[in-house]
Amino acid sequence: MDLHDTICAPATVPGTGAITVIRVSGPESFAVVDKFFRSRRGTLAGAEGYTILYGSLVDPFGEASLEDQFVDDVLVSVFRAPHSYTGEDGAEISCHASAYIATRVLSLLCKAGARLAEPGEFTRRAFVNGKMDLAQAEAVADVISSSSSAAHRIAVTQLKGGYSAELASIREALVEITSLLELELDFSEEEVEFADRSRLRSLLVSASAKVHGLSESFRLGNAIKNGVPVAIVGEPNTGKSTLLNALVGEDRAIVSDIAGTTRDSIEASMVLDGITFRFIDTAGLRESSDWVESKGIERTLKMVGAADIVLALVDPTRSPAEAQQMLASLTARLDFSSQILLVLVNKMDLNKNVKDINNFVSSVDSYGDVVLISALSGEGLDELRSTLVRKVQQRLPGNSDAVLVTNARHHEALRHTAESLDTALRALDAGTPSDLVAQDLRAALHYLGTITGAVTTDEVLGEIFSRFCVGK
Amino acid sequence: MDLHDTICAPATVPGTGAITVIRVSGPESFAVVDKFFRSRRGTLAGAEGYTILYGSLVDPFGEASLEDQFVDDVLVSVFRAPHSYTGEDGAEISCHASAYIATRVLSLLCKAGARLAEPGEFTRRAFVNGKMDLAQAEAVADVISSSSSAAHRIAVTQLKGGYSAELASIREALVEITSLLELELDFSEEEVEFADRSRLRSLLVSASAKVHGLSESFRLGNAIKNGVPVAIVGEPNTGKSTLLNALVGEDRAIVSDIAGTTRDSIEASMVLDGITFRFIDTAGLRESSDWVESKGIERTLKMVGAADIVLALVDPTRSPAEAQQMLASLTARLDFSSQILLVLVNKMDLNKNVKDINNFVSSVDSYGDVVLISALSGEGLDELRSTLVRKVQQRLPGNSDAVLVTNARHHEALRHTAESLDTALRALDAGTPSDLVAQDLRAALHYLGTITGAVTTDEVLGEIFSRFCVGK
Repeated sequence: MDLHDTICAPATVPGTGAITVIRVSGPESFAVVDKFFRSRRGTLAGAEGYTILYGSLVDPFGEASLEDQFVDDVLVSVFRAPHSYTGEDGAEISCHASAYIATRVLSLLCKAGARLAEPGEFTRRAFVNGKMDLAQAEAVADVISSSSSAAHRIAVTQLKGGYSAELASIREALVEITSLLELELDFSEEEVEFADRSRLRSLLVSASAKVHGLSESFRLGNAIKNGVPVAIVGEPNTGKSTLLNALVGEDRAIVSDIAGTTRDSIEASMVLDGITFRFIDTAGLRESSDWVESKGIERTLKMVGAADIVLALVDPTRSPAEAQQMLASLTARLDFSSQILLVLVNKMDLNKNVKDINNFVSSVDSYGDVVLISALSGEGLDELRSTLVRKVQQRLPGNSDAVLVTNARHHEALRHTAESLDTALRALDAGTPSDLVAQDLRAALHYLGTITGAVTTDEVLGEIFSRFCVGK
Repeated sequence: MDLHDTICAPATVPGTGAITVIRVSGPESFAVVDKFFRSRRGTLAGAEGYTILYGSLVDPFGEASLEDQFVDDVLVSVFRAPHSYTGEDGAEISCHASAYIATRVLSLLCKAGARLAEPGEFTRRAFVNGKMDLAQAEAVADVISSSSSAAHRIAVTQLKGGYSAELASIREALVEITSLLELELDFSEEEVEFADRSRLRSLLVSASAKVHGLSESFRLGNAIKNGVPVAIVGEPNTGKSTLLNALVGEDRAIVSDIAGTTRDSIEASMVLDGITFRFIDTAGLRESSDWVESKGIERTLKMVGAADIVLALVDPTRSPAEAQQMLASLTARLDFSSQILLVLVNKMDLNKNVKDINNFVSSVDSYGDVVLISALSGEGLDELRSTLVRKVQQRLPGNSDAVLVTNARHHEALRHTAESLDTALRALDAGTPSDLVAQDLRAALHYLGTITGAVTTDEVLGEIFSRFCVGK
């Protein structure tokens, strides 16, 4: 791909609003647009950056008769390198929102010397021209797709470079350690140890902890980005489907079926206090048999394993032993370092005496936080919602610059980085020669570099930017 | 509706492109945006018109913690009254294309004192502030929805005021006649005739002819705007469906089924040389019976009546008498002042001797232009296409400023204007007193005035602008 010519693409979808914006970027941007833009305020070439020209687009090409020449009255925004999104000279043509006009304008641009941009090419140029690193470029796509304030905040932190700064500080520490070790190599004949081994070790342990922390933040980051998975489990007829409907049914506007959901489960998502929750009803899998022996149990357990929060519904009108058996079976399978279990005592609408309820609750409250609800009457659901939000918020980093990893590519790179650091640490502890330790550290630096794009290949870049839309 | 406060709306559809543009217009635009926009380049209030500020949107409202305050990095275009679309102070905020961000920005704008715009309110304000008349405002919607160069050209002529200028010249003539007649009223005691009756008459006849011409241009204008309806008729098995498929099937990209088409007919449209044609296959209505007696004949005749061009398929392997019977029946029903009949001699792929064909053609060529085709092999279809284009182009006005009426509201007003002028002319010829003639002319002026909005009511305006999208 030539990244030094002049490209164009619609930045908005033509024909669906009041205006369509068409982007142009590259060294010939002004010359290209000036070929068919007429304004009493002069040319793009003569305009200052960050100014707008009002004028007409006319078609000077082909054999169109005079009456065909006028295309549209437009506003053109002028950006001068390096003060633009891409870092290049550029223009944004704001025309009437007509697919016909957009097609004509793109055709004029191409006749005048531009070419249609590849998907993500504007952002790729911004990366190539040093306007943003790779992690920031990827955050652009995340910002666009964010649908909750929590996801938006993470994406924006990454876009504004918070994540990159975190990586840079880790990288700096690793470079320092590596340099010290490699310095020794130059004097290897003399068997000196310039670097204090215990200081090296402590630097390495600290860097490794940071990398592990980032890597582990992926589970939460991914949940925030794509919605926190909440599995609803329970014996048949404990009210799982009723609960799902009660939770999301009150405001259908913010509920949507998850695309691509398998028919094995029923999902619905909703945003509570800025956090997207994906509720997964495991009902219908095994209504006809025992909870444990059911043939659907594997699928249920798989969903439970993938959930960040498990809502276990129990029925106080049945025996506590039955509830305990299910909860024991569940807790044996949960990883409480990353998963949360809430025990929901349902059917509180059925009048029961207080003592019975208290006895029931005390028989199950050792398994997780208990919330008393009635999926049918809605009782206790507000408390359930605020508990869900609180549980997630408690795991969110406390300060605004804290970073959560949301990108699977970054997570993969961080895992490799962590592995290399662990190997380096073991090697250091085993007294392995400096050059071998340095080699592991170099590997760690390599993996870390792939995140921000300090280390990269055309193939990786192509892969990343091809997922962007055209015009971005 | 308050037309003097500050309004906002998305001008592009959020979430479907690279950027979303949100429009703000009204006297408080700068103050409103400055409440939550931070830029190193200063405030909107301090910025010149036609400049762009880069900066951040932050949420200063509510109790959001610090990390919630940042919303997006944006470009803000500044427009100062009267040099803006609406004629008011205004701004366009270009943010990342995320539905979440767009919602946040609109919410910020409303908290800062703007309100969400009604559909078409920006254009309505442009009308109220004298930036365009009503016909031009309506042309904005037509420009946006134009999907062919011919439709685009008509809409653009109207948008740029060509149509309004035509109306203004008619209006001027009518005002002159009316004034002359009303002047006589002041001296009615003296029974003078200031105005030369024959000159008045000739002015009136000329104005009336122009109004009639505009009114009659609606049929063609509407066809250009919505597609020229072309009915394909013929005996069963003469190849109607094959022809439809052959005409539009070669380039499926520019073919689309017409939404809302009844199941009574099969429609497909395509653009030929900048003109949209809507092909209507009347097949399937009455495959089982005689052409004339068929019970589906009424529906076919209705489509024939609504068509601007009728393609009559005849089969030279059958008897000429059969073809003549159909063509005679068709021509009896067509209005050749506005409709065109093309006789298509089909099945030219079946080898026939030249003499037979010549005889067949001479038996049908008195009914309309004959084109020899084979719907099956594609023979003659290019000639058919160019004939279709030529027939429509011959009816298009020759010069670029010529006006075609495309708007049903305008057509209605022109019809009323024409009626009033005809009444006035008859009254003048009958020697009716000047004041009665003047009354008819006033009525004509009234109807004419409703087109450009010189005469209008809130109700009419509400009706017109409610059809616009929000943000326009």
